[in-house]
Formats: sequence, structure tokens, C-alpha cells
Amino acid sequence: MKIFIVYWHPEPQSFNGSMFRAACKVLIDAGHEVRTSDLHEMRFDPVSSRKNFTTVKDQDYFKQQIEEMHATETKGFSAGLEAEMEKLEWCDLMVWQFPLWWFGLPAVLKGWVDRVFAMGRIYGYGHIYETGVFRGKQALLSLTTGGQEEAYRHGGFNGDISGVLRPIQRGMLEFVGFGVLAPQIVYAPVRMTDDERAQHLAAYTERLLHITQESPFDVGTY
Amino acid sequence: MKIFIVYWHPEPQSFNGSMFRAACKVLIDAGHEVRTSDLHEMRFDPVSSRKNFTTVKDQDYFKQQIEEMHATETKGFSAGLEAEMEKLEWCDLMVWQFPLWWFGLPAVLKGWVDRVFAMGRIYGYGHIYETGVFRGKQALLSLTTGGQEEAYRHGGFNGDISGVLRPIQRGMLEFVGFGVLAPQIVYAPVRMTDDERAQHLAAYTERLLHITQESPFDVGTY
Repeated sequence: MKIFIVYWHPEPQSFNGSMFRAACKVLIDAGHEVRTSDLHEMRFDPVSSRKNFTTVKDQDYFKQQIEEMHATETKGFSAGLEAEMEKLEWCDLMVWQFPLWWFGLPAVLKGWVDRVFAMGRIYGYGHIYETGVFRGKQALLSLTTGGQEEAYRHGGFNGDISGVLRPIQRGMLEFVGFGVLAPQIVYAPVRMTDDERAQHLAAYTERLLHITQESPFDVGTY
Repeated sequence: MKIFIVYWHPEPQSFNGSMFRAACKVLIDAGHEVRTSDLHEMRFDPVSSRKNFTTVKDQDYFKQQIEEMHATETKGFSAGLEAEMEKLEWCDLMVWQFPLWWFGLPAVLKGWVDRVFAMGRIYGYGHIYETGVFRGKQALLSLTTGGQEEAYRHGGFNGDISGVLRPIQRGMLEFVGFGVLAPQIVYAPVRMTDDERAQHLAAYTERLLHITQESPFDVGTY
């Protein structure tokens, strides 16, 4: 299988970094093709602007979607974005490894979506959700939280994690056609012992060994 | 009233820009004190890193919350973040003006939250939700969407907008103690005539004239 892992955390030694590296290793060892975007190492710029493009459709008014549709027709995406889109188009499975920050993606990963998920090339012209460009591909969120698991249940402190993740799983991944596998969530690794963290790493790599047998789950709608 | 407006859109001539400028004008004309953060004009950097701080707690491992708690004790936030925090602490009402991108905040505004909402100074030590640092203050989302209103209803194309906005209204604003006013949503201004857009601008400025009489609504939980 062709697997694309997108990862961001500001500290390479973090547990997120360990999850990212462990996933790469176990998947490569299992014979899969793996490509990655380590957005921290790449110093990926999350700010949408005319830098997204080498072409200009309207020089007097910057409407990103208009420029995206034009760039789709004229091969006008910046080299950096073109490389990300090619990995997205190439993969069978996409994994996002990140810390949940403020009930959502950290800004760098959100900006990766803002810039890479371009109208025309990645969605649009009737291609969304069930008719999405990437139907047949699968996606997996692998994330950490600051709070404990009991805080992320219905009626809990922060509330049901499936609602918290819905903008990502439904609004981003399913929107462009991905089937979404059950998220891999490690709650509050900062509060764990080294042994407990090692157990979570092992559980994740064990899951990844059999990931090709998994099917998308129902992420819910609003 | 002291009002702080945070705004981001990559095109100053956009309808978001018009909403931002109209809000500033009507509120100033009405005698309120207004401070702003035009994140596009400021070229605000949304990437969390050691640049958030002038101090260092642990030079071998970057854990943002640990550094934030240290910076809270030692006045160690960067000048740029310190200025944002002071506006946040100063205001009675905070307004965010933005386009809804991928079911959430655009990356620059998300990064503003990631960097400015610092543990210790802005939340934590038992101060969250009902005991949040900013209890007594109010917040208002003013946003545009790409899709039409019927797409953002329960069972609609994208689903109930209140669920889409919950991570922002509950997970960010209420989390730090703000009472949240009903969001000002302009659906699909791109598909409107100039007259229709002008009507929406007028409705917004009319609302702002009486904003001091509004009370927080129930944003819902998960």
C-alpha cells in the first residue's frame, strides 16, 4: 500500500514525534511504500497567499478559490504545494499525526489543508463527499490530547471527542472523498510513565501491521 | 465599552474586510473604544515555537505549555504576543471577523489562538469554562461561508452550523471564560449582488449599535 504521513509538532522529541517515526518504520518494514511530510522539519508556511501560485488569474483582487481553479487548469501551483498534492494523489492511505490543540488541528496542519486542498484539483466541480476526488482512499487521524479520556466523553469536561473531531473527519477528509478509519487517540501522554507511553506506541504499530484490513467507520454528520 | 476586533482575510478588499472596517467605524462613532488586530496587515506569524518567548524554561525539550507557564511568571512573552494578550485582557467584548475555511478558523487565526491563549496567563490553574480568566467578558464570531445557508442546517449538505462552530465557541471562547453572543453569519456573500452585500453590512452595523444590550446564548456542548 502507498501511505502518506503528514506530521506536525514543534518538538521532534515529543511523543507525537515518536508516533510518527514508529509508524514510518513499521510500515516500511512491512513492505509498504511510505512518503512523509514532516511540516516542522520542512518549515511549512501555513499562510495562504499568492505564494500558493506561480500563475495569476486576477491581479487586482485575490480570491483564493478563483486562483486555485486557474492554477488547476494551468499547472500553476507553487512547487511546494505541487509536491504535497502529488503525495495526496499518490497515496492509498493518508495519516495525520498531530497534537489536538484548541479542539482542532494546530495552525501549521490547518494551513497545510487551507493551501493544499485546492478547489478544482482537490475538490469542486461536483466532486465532494460521496463523489469526492479521493473516494476509494482512506485516511486516519493519529493524535494526542492534553486532557484525560474521561474529559472527552459525552457529558464530560470537554465533551464527546467524535464531535470535536467532526470538522476534521467530516469537513476535511470525507469532504474530499476519503473514507475515515477510527482515530488513534492517545489521551494525555504527558501524564503517563515511559512504560505507559511505550505501550501506546506498541499498540499503534501493532494496529498499523493490520491497517490494510480495516474499513471506514461512520464519523457522523451534524 | 472596550472592544477588540481580530480579523484575518488574505484580500483587504474582501467582504470580510468591509465587515471589519464597517464594525470599527460604527463602534467608534458610537463612542466605544476600539482596538484591532488585522492579522493580514500585521503579517502575523501563526507558527508556535520558541519565538513565542523571550525566556527559556527547558532548553533541551520544547513543551509549549511549560514555557507558557514559565513566561507567565517571568513576563517572558515576546513583544508581539504580549501586545495581543494585553488587548485580550483589556477588552469587554472581543469580535473575530473571518471566513470559515474547512469547517474552522483559517490557519492564521487558529495560530493566533494557539500562540496567544497561553497556559498560566490566559487559562489553567483551575481557570477554565465557568471559572475562566475572562468570565464577564463577551465574544462574537462574525464570519462568512462559501456555501449557502441551507447547506448549513441539520441534515443539510454540510450540517448544522452550530456544530461546526462548537470547537470555536465552546472549545476556545467559553473555555477561557467568554460569554458567547449569537454568531453573525453571512452565507455565501460571493454569490450575492452588491445590493445584497450592502444589506448584510447594514444589518451588522445596526446590530452592533445595540450590541451592549445582548446576552450570551447557549452554544451547546458535545
